[in-house]
Amino acid sequence: MVPHLTTALSGPLVSLEKRMLDAMPDIEHWFRGQWQEVAAPFYASVDLRNAGFKLAPVDTNLFPGGFNNLNPEFLSLSVHAAQVAVEKICPDARRLLLIPENHTRNTYYLRNVVELCHILKAAGMEVRVGSLSPEITEVTRLETHDGLPLILEPLVREKNRLKLNAASFDGVDYPAFDSCAILLNNDLSGGVPDLLQNLEQTLIPPLHAGWFMRRKSQHFAAYDKVVDSFAKLLDIDPWLLNPYFDTASGIDFHARVGEDQLADKVDAMLKKIAAKYAEYGIEHAPFVIVKADAGTYGMGIMSVKSADEVRDLNRKTRNKMSVIKEGVEVSEVMIQEGVYTFENINDAVAEPVVYMMDHFVVGGFYRVHTSRGVDENLNAPGMQFVPLAFEKPCTLPDCSDAPDAPPNRFYAYGVVARLALLAAGMELQENDPLNT
Amino acid sequence: MVPHLTTALSGPLVSLEKRMLDAMPDIEHWFRGQWQEVAAPFYASVDLRNAGFKLAPVDTNLFPGGFNNLNPEFLSLSVHAAQVAVEKICPDARRLLLIPENHTRNTYYLRNVVELCHILKAAGMEVRVGSLSPEITEVTRLETHDGLPLILEPLVREKNRLKLNAASFDGVDYPAFDSCAILLNNDLSGGVPDLLQNLEQTLIPPLHAGWFMRRKSQHFAAYDKVVDSFAKLLDIDPWLLNPYFDTASGIDFHARVGEDQLADKVDAMLKKIAAKYAEYGIEHAPFVIVKADAGTYGMGIMSVKSADEVRDLNRKTRNKMSVIKEGVEVSEVMIQEGVYTFENINDAVAEPVVYMMDHFVVGGFYRVHTSRGVDENLNAPGMQFVPLAFEKPCTLPDCSDAPDAPPNRFYAYGVVARLALLAAGMELQENDPLNT
Repeated sequence: MVPHLTTALSGPLVSLEKRMLDAMPDIEHWFRGQWQEVAAPFYASVDLRNAGFKLAPVDTNLFPGGFNNLNPEFLSLSVHAAQVAVEKICPDARRLLLIPENHTRNTYYLRNVVELCHILKAAGMEVRVGSLSPEITEVTRLETHDGLPLILEPLVREKNRLKLNAASFDGVDYPAFDSCAILLNNDLSGGVPDLLQNLEQTLIPPLHAGWFMRRKSQHFAAYDKVVDSFAKLLDIDPWLLNPYFDTASGIDFHARVGEDQLADKVDAMLKKIAAKYAEYGIEHAPFVIVKADAGTYGMGIMSVKSADEVRDLNRKTRNKMSVIKEGVEVSEVMIQEGVYTFENINDAVAEPVVYMMDHFVVGGFYRVHTSRGVDENLNAPGMQFVPLAFEKPCTLPDCSDAPDAPPNRFYAYGVVARLALLAAGMELQENDPLNT
Repeated sequence: MVPHLTTALSGPLVSLEKRMLDAMPDIEHWFRGQWQEVAAPFYASVDLRNAGFKLAPVDTNLFPGGFNNLNPEFLSLSVHAAQVAVEKICPDARRLLLIPENHTRNTYYLRNVVELCHILKAAGMEVRVGSLSPEITEVTRLETHDGLPLILEPLVREKNRLKLNAASFDGVDYPAFDSCAILLNNDLSGGVPDLLQNLEQTLIPPLHAGWFMRRKSQHFAAYDKVVDSFAKLLDIDPWLLNPYFDTASGIDFHARVGEDQLADKVDAMLKKIAAKYAEYGIEHAPFVIVKADAGTYGMGIMSVKSADEVRDLNRKTRNKMSVIKEGVEVSEVMIQEGVYTFENINDAVAEPVVYMMDHFVVGGFYRVHTSRGVDENLNAPGMQFVPLAFEKPCTLPDCSDAPDAPPNRFYAYGVVARLALLAAGMELQENDPLNT
């Protein structure tokens, strides 16, 4: 089952998809050249929005948490890609210590950790899972929603190395574990814990990929450059692939500081979008997304259609906007052009998410959401989405089929996701403390 | 449907498979280290024989001709691997000129060429097919056994480049084509044609991979080194993965020159095999394969169980042994330990063939043959085999399952095939004219 576009405005997208199919050798050649210059992140997921007239990334996650939602038939793609990624970053590694998020009660997230371990083991690594959570003081067996076991072990710091102690649990002996590399599946929203400071082991991705440091606006600034170059290659309007964005700092939602600044910027952006909508004959109402610049997990996000909406925030919305994951206070926000999602399955809104390891697209899924609108964020706290794995890989377009046939649409999704991945690679290079 | 082992002697294999599963992180770590030193061939296929007590490669093909026999569900693995291979050899390439074998009447081989084009196009290359055949003097449309079109174009030499001229055919315009790289799917049994001499374009694989130059005995000499190192890693007898071999030169089957030398070597090898069979309690009769050292396509091969058999060759066998593909005379032969194949589907003998691109296993299939015995070569001229694609990729062993469950057996096949691939990489490095 594949979502269908419910908009009458699919013309521009079909012509964009056709342009991509026709230019495929040029596109792949261009990517090959880019990856000679920019190191791909170890892994990433990109949320896309498909408005029919526009196809754009709205968020790029460097600690992807939904490997369990990918189509198991294409698991071997992830295995190949993981092998390449390990070869590049740490060819001598044979053991990998995986550090997940602390929310050990989210049994779907635990399933993601199990799946990630499965991929890395199949790629030939010894993998153990060490937890930063203060609750994990001994070997602990958790269970995923579908009944699979996940063994978490307490991390032990010895000088500048993170290790696992030898232990015995449930009749199984766990020898001491000292790995050459540490894979983070924890986005470090709350900063870098002491345990992770000044380690001599290779951290993947590097600490500066964490949300304590990363800014969405830096990502989209890098994405601007990537899309400008790509749009020249395809001779298209970069706006078709790129949402406008702006930033506002010094905001205090509780104290109502910075509201006017924010309202002015929202207003300016709505006007810019309206001009583009007029140019393309799009009759929908422009909207913008205001979100915490360092936010994740769909926290600290609102969708607005007029500047007034950010002036008269009620207490509930102000509370929602002012704090993100790990209780971090929000003072910097990004104002991003809202991109409608017009993909539907039955009556539910769907949003594609593309997964990558190294510079390979390894799969994707749709977030399908029954109770949300076409102009709302589908990645929300406690979000009840149904993941729908892509039926086909994103690497096998079929030029003899229609440009919007599923394998070809997936190819376009893979291209746009890789543009965002390239931006993330540039962003990590720019932010590398060793680079300054 | 997966073949089953029909031998009672599957104990040693199961323990070998178990050893490989247990040592998987060590094995993959070892391979990573090896590929830092040795460049993988662009593509290769390896014929394996599984005797239950022994699992060994018997032939490594650097111009694989059966991509059409792989499981189409795993096509995207080939696409990923092809992307890596192109990045390594010629990152700036955007066009690839494919030169196939000349036998344009083998509609199954044509299907292989179509499939290879499909993979390379999906990897983002512009691909056209240029023929060395003197019969192809203009754009020619051929058809595969299943009705797919394949367009062959005549090669044009311009100074030190091979190109395709602009042409119009069947209402389609073919612009002139000048590629940075040329992919050979032609094994050059008859030597290097003038058209291919001294080209400035990159040839993949390099000319010295052709059978006019390659010797099976050099491959297996490299394989000896690879297996010795690997057997130390696993602490196993290298013989379990390695067939004995020897060579004899100055043979003239027509003139009955060198028969005694050959008979003595066959006799010596049969005794060595018998000693190993005694060590492992194997009650089958040892046999050896005598084959042209530069032979391919299953030509110039015989299976013998006693030295007398090579002394009293009848005229028909002498004719068969003395000439191989492209009419090349045989004077050097390899004497190789025969490895029984005890895999069966219904009553037919099956032999696994593993396909690789760069250093990735991308799939495989069984050659299933109803009219041949367990001690015969299954790759014979005019061979009527049924290809049976592997149901699972070779990269996803399941440690919770039995060591001989299909995904685990396929993993073992992938490991042994990669050992042969590594030997081929070493062999190409040693034979590189730039290396001497």
